[in-house]
Amino acid sequence: MPSYKAPVEDVKFLLNDVFGWERYDNLPGFADASPDTVDAILEEAAKLCEQVLQPLNATGDREGCQRQPDGSVTTPKGFKQAYDAFAEGGWIGLAADPAYGGQGLPYTLAAIVNEFASAANMSFSMYPGLTQGALAALLVHGTEEQKQLYAPHMISGAWSGTMNLTEPHCGTDLGLLKTKAVQKGDGSYGITGQKIFISAGEHDLAQNIVHLVLARIEGAPAGTKGISLFIVPKLLPRVDGTPGERNAVSCGSIEHKMGIHGNSTCVMNYDGATGWLLGAENRGLNAMFVMMNEARLGVAIQGLAQSEVAYQNAAAYAKERLQSRSLSGPKAPEKPADPIIVHPDVRRMMIEIRAFNEAARALVLTTALKSDVAHRSGDEATVRAADDWLGLMTPVLKGVLTDVGFANTVKAQQVFGGHGYVGEWGMEQFVRDARIAMIYEGANGIQALDLVGRKLPKDGGRAIMSFFSEVGGFLKTHQADEALKPLAPGLKSVVDDLQKATMWFMQNAMAKPDNAGAGSTDYMHLFGLVALGYMWAQIAVAAGAKKAADPSSAALMDAKLITGKFFMERMMPETAAHLARIGTGADTMMALPADAF
Amino acid sequence: MPSYKAPVEDVKFLLNDVFGWERYDNLPGFADASPDTVDAILEEAAKLCEQVLQPLNATGDREGCQRQPDGSVTTPKGFKQAYDAFAEGGWIGLAADPAYGGQGLPYTLAAIVNEFASAANMSFSMYPGLTQGALAALLVHGTEEQKQLYAPHMISGAWSGTMNLTEPHCGTDLGLLKTKAVQKGDGSYGITGQKIFISAGEHDLAQNIVHLVLARIEGAPAGTKGISLFIVPKLLPRVDGTPGERNAVSCGSIEHKMGIHGNSTCVMNYDGATGWLLGAENRGLNAMFVMMNEARLGVAIQGLAQSEVAYQNAAAYAKERLQSRSLSGPKAPEKPADPIIVHPDVRRMMIEIRAFNEAARALVLTTALKSDVAHRSGDEATVRAADDWLGLMTPVLKGVLTDVGFANTVKAQQVFGGHGYVGEWGMEQFVRDARIAMIYEGANGIQALDLVGRKLPKDGGRAIMSFFSEVGGFLKTHQADEALKPLAPGLKSVVDDLQKATMWFMQNAMAKPDNAGAGSTDYMHLFGLVALGYMWAQIAVAAGAKKAADPSSAALMDAKLITGKFFMERMMPETAAHLARIGTGADTMMALPADAF
Repeated sequence: MPSYKAPVEDVKFLLNDVFGWERYDNLPGFADASPDTVDAILEEAAKLCEQVLQPLNATGDREGCQRQPDGSVTTPKGFKQAYDAFAEGGWIGLAADPAYGGQGLPYTLAAIVNEFASAANMSFSMYPGLTQGALAALLVHGTEEQKQLYAPHMISGAWSGTMNLTEPHCGTDLGLLKTKAVQKGDGSYGITGQKIFISAGEHDLAQNIVHLVLARIEGAPAGTKGISLFIVPKLLPRVDGTPGERNAVSCGSIEHKMGIHGNSTCVMNYDGATGWLLGAENRGLNAMFVMMNEARLGVAIQGLAQSEVAYQNAAAYAKERLQSRSLSGPKAPEKPADPIIVHPDVRRMMIEIRAFNEAARALVLTTALKSDVAHRSGDEATVRAADDWLGLMTPVLKGVLTDVGFANTVKAQQVFGGHGYVGEWGMEQFVRDARIAMIYEGANGIQALDLVGRKLPKDGGRAIMSFFSEVGGFLKTHQADEALKPLAPGLKSVVDDLQKATMWFMQNAMAKPDNAGAGSTDYMHLFGLVALGYMWAQIAVAAGAKKAADPSSAALMDAKLITGKFFMERMMPETAAHLARIGTGADTMMALPADAF
Repeated sequence: MPSYKAPVEDVKFLLNDVFGWERYDNLPGFADASPDTVDAILEEAAKLCEQVLQPLNATGDREGCQRQPDGSVTTPKGFKQAYDAFAEGGWIGLAADPAYGGQGLPYTLAAIVNEFASAANMSFSMYPGLTQGALAALLVHGTEEQKQLYAPHMISGAWSGTMNLTEPHCGTDLGLLKTKAVQKGDGSYGITGQKIFISAGEHDLAQNIVHLVLARIEGAPAGTKGISLFIVPKLLPRVDGTPGERNAVSCGSIEHKMGIHGNSTCVMNYDGATGWLLGAENRGLNAMFVMMNEARLGVAIQGLAQSEVAYQNAAAYAKERLQSRSLSGPKAPEKPADPIIVHPDVRRMMIEIRAFNEAARALVLTTALKSDVAHRSGDEATVRAADDWLGLMTPVLKGVLTDVGFANTVKAQQVFGGHGYVGEWGMEQFVRDARIAMIYEGANGIQALDLVGRKLPKDGGRAIMSFFSEVGGFLKTHQADEALKPLAPGLKSVVDDLQKATMWFMQNAMAKPDNAGAGSTDYMHLFGLVALGYMWAQIAVAAGAKKAADPSSAALMDAKLITGKFFMERMMPETAAHLARIGTGADTMMALPADAF
């Protein structure tokens, strides 16, 4: 059976040594999060995830969710108790506004807990995760009355939330959506239509479910400019705020999926269900997009989380499984064979995953900190800079962490040989679960297009220029740093590749947008490598300093420095290939007639 | 529901136009395989695979195999009828020795049928596939009596075959195996032990099952030099050759796997089961390895097959699914949105898969032809050259076609967005099924090690030198060919990368074998790209000639030329990254202490 240990020490190193947590003291909520408090929160979250959520991961996968004949949905055994523990621990509202019962702590801490929970049990973590997403939209766009009515219940976990976007004929292209909203004259609307792939759409964990539903008000313009967002509760709240009469929304069926079986992915039918407008009429997409950065960061975290838990289990196996002798002579001569971690190709797979995970976690945390700054700082220029980073980095995080995270689960599975293919060891579940993160919350091709089509040119390229300037500044500031020296040339070289690729788009994609589309995925991954390399540079500087200041940390810090060096040597050569592919443009692929495919 | 159309036209183009089928007329069995006969065989195989096997693929996945309380195993509904049709069609013994009831046709044709069957229904195709593997060992190593007793039944399909290698504590390292064989004094042995991951180990398709089992004779040396191979039939043949008394071999359980649910992967228990030595005592591994090339080529074909069927379904979807408008303006203005094949990133995924599939099929066929030459030619030098190619290319084919084949099923699934993640469209099954091919018949890391550790240095590097010389000769011969011109520089450049990598191993891996292990997977994939690029060069020359000779073929041939150009532009930049990674050696990855993982 697989196991999981939350990477608490790594998180503390990143927060304290790499990113200087104390520097954020001036932001609201951070004062309540002293290093000691953070430690206590991390330990508590780790305990819950390791001891309560993780043991339900494999059983939840096997059991799945069951739709009962009456349309109700039963979650796997143990999920309800785990959900209660999660809710009672206050984890859903960890970073939410105290005015509605939240703890008001930094969002960064919520992102960390999200990694732990998602690694322990991705299917489970989606139930509170969806609530947090819906809550974010509600708190930004809701009227005070709506917030008072729904937010406290959602924060306590008594009610959960969902996001209803996709319909059978429209996923990416929401302009095609058909779900209708008809004014009922009392301020409410009748919502009619079918939504598919609705995560946590129906279940037995909460008293009530608050569906946020995109629909088109009668007479609204066609396309994306005629879409509004509605609050459609499963049970209509009574005047006193308790859940009352059943609304005309129901789960038509549960999708049979490749993975995340413990989460109920539903077809939801709205048959004139009562809903209330959330935010302005015809501005539903904007309301959705406001929380898109955090939602996409949440999915990026799932990619990292599955990569991490798969790594941990593969590492344990590679140190125990005895098979063949080392090429350089027996390493465990007293045993019938050497543990497979001695074999370079096994070790390569392991260190590739690790070199990604540690940098990816750093990138998640630094981006989460930017989100805290963007939402909590009072300084305009600071907020703008943080927003620039968020806008630019969100598609990179979502696309790269889920693509590579998935590939890493496949690699970790490979370490087990045949044992990775059977259910017993749990490795194949990580692969199946991780796969969805490349698809939902905007398929990764859409992330790439968002990056090159929107985020790069935005504000005259201000965000990407700031990024280049920040990395260049960092390299210059620390040019004499001994720990950075082995890594600096590699980072410089790939920054150069990214600059060339960016320039290529400026010169070739304006007049011919297909050139942007043809190179978008390569650009996103090239960007990801540079961003992760920049994280390794920061980690190396911090590790060098920590090792000097605290010799007892030497073994851990040396492992960081070796892994960072490996990243530069082995992962970075890919950037030149990305650049070369981008430079070939769209001509050849567009030359093939569609019917030749 | 997914569909499948066997790529008959592509196979005919490869056999006739690219590889010159008629040049092999002088080999036994080829005279019976005139182009017309081949056409008829391909059409018949296509019909069976498309109409009988493919419709059982999704249902077989959902239903799986069931072990009954009495230890018997029930295959999914329809498999028995399909198996009878497959057996009656003579497909199992298509290339087998006519002396035992086979058709004696070229092995190349069997490889083609294998692709069709595996694409249509991988789980199903493994039942006859395992029989063919066991049969090959029997025909090479069996006594005449053994061959007479078993081969005709296996060729007719009345009896099926299995290979029993893996035990719980040993997969790759067969030297650790514990299954015991004790002489019974009557020429037979009592076999005792447990085998795991035995494909087609028990089922209801055939009257009898002939297990080939690796075991250690009492008193045999430890390690790989004390392993013998045994024939252990499920039912002991009577004197008249009919199946008689039940042997002491049974299926203990069926493994719960990620995919290939339609194939019964069994834990097999041998409790003093009666077996007979196949081949010489203590030479069991050699007996197994004789057929390894064809068995590994068979698995390589599974990688291609899943990539092909996933491609076909993704192409159909991409031409039908309407979502968003083309970046260069509406392409289907009469529809609510454009078909997604107009979007460059979707098209990129599709053409990447296609560019791989067509070259991979060429590499499979040219290698299968070498196998026919190696087994059927009377000319020593010709046989030696063919054997060199086979030895060198087999690990490349197995490792690269299954790694990339799997990645392609993931890509094809991505084209479907959320619809790819649910069972309905069948795409996620291709991913789950394709995954095993990277693991069994020697995990791909082992293929890479076989390539750099054994195949490269063998005979003073004769095989790799011949390969370089052949590719160089081809480029020189056709240097004036207009169709080749756009592809030649790309191919030359990657051949150069492969030569540099080969040289690097010669200089750095002899003294320090970890350097070979550290770069082995990169080398295998670098080699794969060069080999596939060489296939594209040959396809381009043939396509140019065919287009000139037969203008009606222009559209098809142009599609080949465009796809080949895409391969050079977009897939080949990867070779430089492989070379760079190889050149960093093992030092950094070996520097991390094992307990730091």
